[in-house]
Amino acid sequence: MKDLRIFSGRANPKLGDQMCAYLGLDRGNIHLEDFPDTETFCKIDEDIRGRDVFLVQPTCPPVNDSLMELLIMIDCCKRASADRITTVIPYFGYARQDRKDEGRVPITAKLVANLITRAGADRVLAMDLHAAQIQGFFDVPVDHLYAAPVLNERILQYGYASDEVVVVSPDEGSIKRALGHQTRIGGRLAIVDKRRASADVTRQENIIGGPVEGRVAFMFDDMISTAGSICGAARVVMSRGAKKVIVAATHAVLAGDAIKRLGDAPIEKVILTDSIPVPPEKMIDKIEIVSVAPLLGEAIKRIHRNESVSRLFGSEREPR
Amino acid sequence: MKDLRIFSGRANPKLGDQMCAYLGLDRGNIHLEDFPDTETFCKIDEDIRGRDVFLVQPTCPPVNDSLMELLIMIDCCKRASADRITTVIPYFGYARQDRKDEGRVPITAKLVANLITRAGADRVLAMDLHAAQIQGFFDVPVDHLYAAPVLNERILQYGYASDEVVVVSPDEGSIKRALGHQTRIGGRLAIVDKRRASADVTRQENIIGGPVEGRVAFMFDDMISTAGSICGAARVVMSRGAKKVIVAATHAVLAGDAIKRLGDAPIEKVILTDSIPVPPEKMIDKIEIVSVAPLLGEAIKRIHRNESVSRLFGSEREPR
Amino acid sequence: MKDLRIFSGRANPKLGDQMCAYLGLDRGNIHLEDFPDTETFCKIDEDIRGRDVFLVQPTCPPVNDSLMELLIMIDCCKRASADRITTVIPYFGYARQDRKDEGRVPITAKLVANLITRAGADRVLAMDLHAAQIQGFFDVPVDHLYAAPVLNERILQYGYASDEVVVVSPDEGSIKRALGHQTRIGGRLAIVDKRRASADVTRQENIIGGPVEGRVAFMFDDMISTAGSICGAARVVMSRGAKKVIVAATHAVLAGDAIKRLGDAPIEKVILTDSIPVPPEKMIDKIEIVSVAPLLGEAIKRIHRNESVSRLFGSEREPR
Amino acid sequence: MKDLRIFSGRANPKLGDQMCAYLGLDRGNIHLEDFPDTETFCKIDEDIRGRDVFLVQPTCPPVNDSLMELLIMIDCCKRASADRITTVIPYFGYARQDRKDEGRVPITAKLVANLITRAGADRVLAMDLHAAQIQGFFDVPVDHLYAAPVLNERILQYGYASDEVVVVSPDEGSIKRALGHQTRIGGRLAIVDKRRASADVTRQENIIGGPVEGRVAFMFDDMISTAGSICGAARVVMSRGAKKVIVAATHAVLAGDAIKRLGDAPIEKVILTDSIPVPPEKMIDKIEIVSVAPLLGEAIKRIHRNESVSRLFGSEREPR
Amino acid sequence: MKDLRIFSGRANPKLGDQMCAYLGLDRGNIHLEDFPDTETFCKIDEDIRGRDVFLVQPTCPPVNDSLMELLIMIDCCKRASADRITTVIPYFGYARQDRKDEGRVPITAKLVANLITRAGADRVLAMDLHAAQIQGFFDVPVDHLYAAPVLNERILQYGYASDEVVVVSPDEGSIKRALGHQTRIGGRLAIVDKRRASADVTRQENIIGGPVEGRVAFMFDDMISTAGSICGAARVVMSRGAKKVIVAATHAVLAGDAIKRLGDAPIEKVILTDSIPVPPEKMIDKIEIVSVAPLLGEAIKRIHRNESVSRLFGSEREPR
Amino acid sequence: MKDLRIFSGRANPKLGDQMCAYLGLDRGNIHLEDFPDTETFCKIDEDIRGRDVFLVQPTCPPVNDSLMELLIMIDCCKRASADRITTVIPYFGYARQDRKDEGRVPITAKLVANLITRAGADRVLAMDLHAAQIQGFFDVPVDHLYAAPVLNERILQYGYASDEVVVVSPDEGSIKRALGHQTRIGGRLAIVDKRRASADVTRQENIIGGPVEGRVAFMFDDMISTAGSICGAARVVMSRGAKKVIVAATHAVLAGDAIKRLGDAPIEKVILTDSIPVPPEKMIDKIEIVSVAPLLGEAIKRIHRNESVSRLFGSEREPR
Repeated sequence: MKDLRIFSGRANPKLGDQMCAYLGLDRGNIHLEDFPDTETFCKIDEDIRGRDVFLVQPTCPPVNDSLMELLIMIDCCKRASADRITTVIPYFGYARQDRKDEGRVPITAKLVANLITRAGADRVLAMDLHAAQIQGFFDVPVDHLYAAPVLNERILQYGYASDEVVVVSPDEGSIKRALGHQTRIGGRLAIVDKRRASADVTRQENIIGGPVEGRVAFMFDDMISTAGSICGAARVVMSRGAKKVIVAATHAVLAGDAIKRLGDAPIEKVILTDSIPVPPEKMIDKIEIVSVAPLLGEAIKRIHRNESVSRLFGSEREPR
Repeated sequence: MKDLRIFSGRANPKLGDQMCAYLGLDRGNIHLEDFPDTETFCKIDEDIRGRDVFLVQPTCPPVNDSLMELLIMIDCCKRASADRITTVIPYFGYARQDRKDEGRVPITAKLVANLITRAGADRVLAMDLHAAQIQGFFDVPVDHLYAAPVLNERILQYGYASDEVVVVSPDEGSIKRALGHQTRIGGRLAIVDKRRASADVTRQENIIGGPVEGRVAFMFDDMISTAGSICGAARVVMSRGAKKVIVAATHAVLAGDAIKRLGDAPIEKVILTDSIPVPPEKMIDKIEIVSVAPLLGEAIKRIHRNESVSRLFGSEREPR
Repeated sequence: MKDLRIFSGRANPKLGDQMCAYLGLDRGNIHLEDFPDTETFCKIDEDIRGRDVFLVQPTCPPVNDSLMELLIMIDCCKRASADRITTVIPYFGYARQDRKDEGRVPITAKLVANLITRAGADRVLAMDLHAAQIQGFFDVPVDHLYAAPVLNERILQYGYASDEVVVVSPDEGSIKRALGHQTRIGGRLAIVDKRRASADVTRQENIIGGPVEGRVAFMFDDMISTAGSICGAARVVMSRGAKKVIVAATHAVLAGDAIKRLGDAPIEKVILTDSIPVPPEKMIDKIEIVSVAPLLGEAIKRIHRNESVSRLFGSEREPR
Repeated sequence: MKDLRIFSGRANPKLGDQMCAYLGLDRGNIHLEDFPDTETFCKIDEDIRGRDVFLVQPTCPPVNDSLMELLIMIDCCKRASADRITTVIPYFGYARQDRKDEGRVPITAKLVANLITRAGADRVLAMDLHAAQIQGFFDVPVDHLYAAPVLNERILQYGYASDEVVVVSPDEGSIKRALGHQTRIGGRLAIVDKRRASADVTRQENIIGGPVEGRVAFMFDDMISTAGSICGAARVVMSRGAKKVIVAATHAVLAGDAIKRLGDAPIEKVILTDSIPVPPEKMIDKIEIVSVAPLLGEAIKRIHRNESVSRLFGSEREPR
Repeated sequence: MKDLRIFSGRANPKLGDQMCAYLGLDRGNIHLEDFPDTETFCKIDEDIRGRDVFLVQPTCPPVNDSLMELLIMIDCCKRASADRITTVIPYFGYARQDRKDEGRVPITAKLVANLITRAGADRVLAMDLHAAQIQGFFDVPVDHLYAAPVLNERILQYGYASDEVVVVSPDEGSIKRALGHQTRIGGRLAIVDKRRASADVTRQENIIGGPVEGRVAFMFDDMISTAGSICGAARVVMSRGAKKVIVAATHAVLAGDAIKRLGDAPIEKVILTDSIPVPPEKMIDKIEIVSVAPLLGEAIKRIHRNESVSRLFGSEREPR
Repeated sequence: MKDLRIFSGRANPKLGDQMCAYLGLDRGNIHLEDFPDTETFCKIDEDIRGRDVFLVQPTCPPVNDSLMELLIMIDCCKRASADRITTVIPYFGYARQDRKDEGRVPITAKLVANLITRAGADRVLAMDLHAAQIQGFFDVPVDHLYAAPVLNERILQYGYASDEVVVVSPDEGSIKRALGHQTRIGGRLAIVDKRRASADVTRQENIIGGPVEGRVAFMFDDMISTAGSICGAARVVMSRGAKKVIVAATHAVLAGDAIKRLGDAPIEKVILTDSIPVPPEKMIDKIEIVSVAPLLGEAIKRIHRNESVSRLFGSEREPR
């Protein structure tokens, strides 16, 4: 693996370090700096001609800075004659702006994909994209990993029996995800239904499916952003007699009042991955981090060695 | 509208005619032919230099022929110096191949988007794309229409009271769609749940939500392809005591044994649009066609006149 | 050649097998299927990351299906991270639509070239393109092979002396081809002249050059499509006293009534290559197939090993 | 036509002037200069924002200078915000390098097409391209004119009866062209056959078809370059008893010793167009120039007004 | 000008308002918002189909946010079918990273140009680019304005006689700029020379040219960033006996300790334009703002009306 | 280095030979020819499939021929399946047309960069570009070398003490270059100031800095084109009492009357590199050539071996 070089942006250097540690590689020498006028400056401090370069940068908040830094790193490596540039984007910012659901709005997720390609990226390694279709926003090859096995593994350590458990989808859009976890974790499925009965009636939150009562409720999402939705769902679940609520999500966006909300909500545990760094001031007790560095590191190794990456994730093709 | 010219491919010429009729326009003169060696030949039989050209072609079965004919029409119009080429694709074939859900498969929906753009299309007018993210597969502007209002209008003509009705999602992936229709039609919501309890247990189909008993069940989908799923769901719904099942869907793909299945299933009515033509031999009694020609024609007029198209469809942006 | 992988589409799998046999390679594992709605599905069933992939697919009838299958295979391999994708297109469909010879028609051969490149092909290996200029429709490298040596070799086995033979060009556009074969086979040259003397005079078919009388006439073409032209020419040649007519052509398109025409015409033998498969029902006695699999297989080997391919075909540059 | 502006490069300013005269337009103000270091400099001396700009430049010898000047004019107009840039290229240099007929040569005609497009041309207006397929080297619209009607009109002024005339193809590659002219001019067809009987026999030039004896022979070509081939053919024709030889060609390349050869050859008249300027020292008596300026001017007017250009040239599609 | 619409990003909305006021136009309705997760959201609140859209956004600090907002606005307008999108970038961030002056660094100014073009901008209107060559980083048309006349006009209001004045270049790289202003303002020229005499000798700052003594020194720059250089030069000039120092610059970047440095330096006046907004807390007394809104507004009007923009700035072509 | 192949165009074959000699390589076999009609023809006479190809061609006068030949060589190598094509352009013609400094002119340097990329070049190796920003005109990697060390080395051989020397900038635009050389050579700095005092006063040429009297004046430029400016500056310097003037420049353009001017001017020595060949008739006594072949050869070796090239030139990043 002598031609393999991994460089981290400043969005999550610790994750980059752990991936290098997993691979037994030194972290690539890169100088990244903000000039006083807020311009980002990048200089690679080692020769990368003809190397197989991986650039690790989740485009997490501050999302514009993370993204521009990634684009600048790509331009830098391309002009420095790297043989191949793979962008490792464990969290893909702007992913929720992936379609025009009203007139005169952008499709920023596609814009971002275009910018990454235009800057010169040859490949993308992503994880738990908000919509799987974002893979198709790229014409360069995308390897798409799932953190679900890492989260499931942690949850299985709790040792609950299947009849003690209910997997709860916090809204109608997450049922497929809940079903996927239920297949591995067991238990029953419930859905928190947040529709209004009608326009002039107060919104009522119901639970479809279950039962929830007396069970440990696991709720999954791809990201915890403002945490409003998941905390509301947790309240509904607890109000229906659940024993406790454990939340697991891949991306710790934790925006706005998320930490306060999570702290106040009847949630026992919030299991998150390190795709996005959680700063110390946000590391409240109920948050627990599991690492995706081995998963990402393994994928990098396989990409570099031309070995199958799809074996790292299971098939989910639907029949016709 | 003197510079507006509409040409139909051979996939659905009747729809093109009806759009022209709506607009009070003569249908464009185009010669399309299959040579004996199966090659498609196209010749535009009127001058189109500097015209605002719309090419109407759902890429319905035989999908490869429909698509290639569209691409050839685009090339023809581009080289004939059309001012602008808008492809009107009421049904977008290959839309379900919109992501890599296993290793070493294509993302054919993106490929098709790239082919249409490469051939020279300046814009796309589509309807009920299987996934809204397919809009982002294009970098040219896409106007995306919904047939839901047309279907809802027909259903409201039945005059059922809200407490006579249940809107049933035939699977977990269609809940959002069901919710959207329920907002307009009223009634309760139910979901047919097709998961297995576990790997060694026989698959059981349950219903979440409801009640279904004694109600008229409406089931919606974006397309009826082989009809296996919707017919199975209809059986479950009827077995739970529904009064009758009425199915409504935008795209009448009706592939394989679909007509036999629909005929045999306990479904009273299948309401479809004319985005795809239904050949006479498939027009069994329980099928009813509502036309989207006025909707598409109106959109064409607005695109040509630079008027707002988004007013033709409601907003569905989700809050953060 | 461990990184060399050859996959066949469904247009001519036997040819792909024979190329693999020539090279002592296993045929690549690929799953190709038509869904009930006529959509083509492709899945590569072995790892191809970093491999040198060749996709064998003549775009023969049904030409739109063959072409789309090729494009989908390319997209699949590109997203599966193949190192290089060479499309092996022994017969290039739509080649005759290579220029605008009237207003408002497409140049479909160029469109097809653009689609193949857009899908992601890195190279093309073609044979007997209808016009050599089609090479220039591509910006990716094209290796262009000629089947003429394979056809000539078969004809020389007949052992005719030069003064027993006449090479007949079936029309004015094929004279160069006839001259090329005559250089190798010997004999005299004749041209069937199909012009009318004037607009109000019945068309008369003459022969320029020759003599034809008492000689074995060899007629060559790049393809036999509807066979109308070649059968007409054969009749003229026989009516002028030729001993017999032997036809040789590279591409067995055999469209429409071609087989009936060939059967009825005063042609003794029709020598064709396997660039396009001839189905059993078309294999009438007078048709004989010679294989281009060794030629194509050798070219693949040389491309893979970075060895000269141009040595496989002779120079034909004209002096200035 | 107030937004129509025509600018001439220095390759054939007189042709540009005549086109402007035909259209009643002032010639556009452009400053073109060679700096002492041979760099070409261009400045447009009038405002062209939003104008419909036509750039007249045959890429005739010195071909590299003519071509670069055209590319620089395009870049200049694009950056000066012209609305549309149509390159008017009455003679397209490098057209004979349109395919790879041996290994490791360029396809310079395609390269040139790519350069013109990359520089920013929106359209091309060409005349008598050496191969019609060169239209397909462009993805921008190409209008392709034929000078044949202009040449035929001049020849018909001679007033020869059909039985006084023979149309002679100077080689096997020009038969189609000869047939086209014969349709209009009448007379018989003959072909000069320049093959060797065999490798060890002296080359003999024969005539196929005819008769030639006692007739006025017309020979046509797309261009007169070194004139070697046409002069040789004229000698053969005269040696077979032709009354006289009249040559007509579109492009007066007249390279190397062409003028001396034409002067010495038994040719009575050489009719050429002004697609390329013939300098005074080459204007020997037997050369006569007919102008294509009205034809090109008319095409420009129609392109500008979005009127049909194809009516300026007849159809030549071949049946299948 | 009914089809002309101007939208401002959030980097300098006041400048946008003043440009609209100059043109007598209402400012375009656009909704721009930062989501809690720092993602930028954009929605155009009026119909822009077929409109001539100008997007005003200097890419000033916070530069990454300003730039991403501009890119998102472009994507939004493109997908909303604007006829033409002109980006008005009065200050172009990252302009100083315009070349590789050491190994393994990016050329971020080119990257930014590529991103703007990739997002879909059709044109650029810029002012006082750090290097004029940045125009060539774009292939779309760039109109490049100079603020020098606006600054000169203000300075001439002081009414100094030519022999009271010295124009001082603060370093060797700004001599051309100083010469340009001197042509208009008069006076003598001086250069502050900041080289070291040798590596082991303390840096000494000299003045070349002049004289400076007893004169009013005007110093010009394209931007005031950290102000270190200009303040140092002011000290040198004052130490040589200048009467006072007046600084004028186009872009008020004012990064880091710039305001403190300017406040402390022996500078009487700092004249800046409003290409970048100066927040109230930085508006110390010695800073004076002159507006470029009329200049930019006039350029927008001319671009929209297809009138000459170059008349807004004088020629500076150098002879050869 | 077995896969490394170097081919020379006809602009400077001797330089190519010397680079090959430095590397111990045979020069690549390429056939380049001008056809009688001035078209350039290229054929590579050895196999280059999969090779790492370097094409050596300064685009020096006749600049259009040199450039087109380079573009044709690139197209040839691309279609012949070279693995990588690096264009070695020791002198980059059209470099001074690098910005729009007046309305309606091209940016020809960018056009040329686009043409080189479009033709298929993968990389560029350049030397002393007229403006460093031209690197950014390319999106492919550019390695940019400086000839200054080679020139300085020759000058240091004269052995002058620092107090015998003055480095003179011949105009205000070359001060940075002069400073760079002074750092290495020592001595004082002077600038020839060519401004007019005012519009109605005769132009006076002054010297800023110095002193010049009694010293050996070294003047540097990136190129000697018409030599007017440098010869004028030499006269000024000598008129101020300099002992002698020695001129050094990288690129020997020597256009127009340059040789006569240099011969007449009070210049003792003109040191030039062989980036452009100086024909024998221009090799007057005072011209001396130093070779950059080892520098370019070393860069080629490092590029081929993926070793650092930036170590060949020093850093010049400026602080912020």
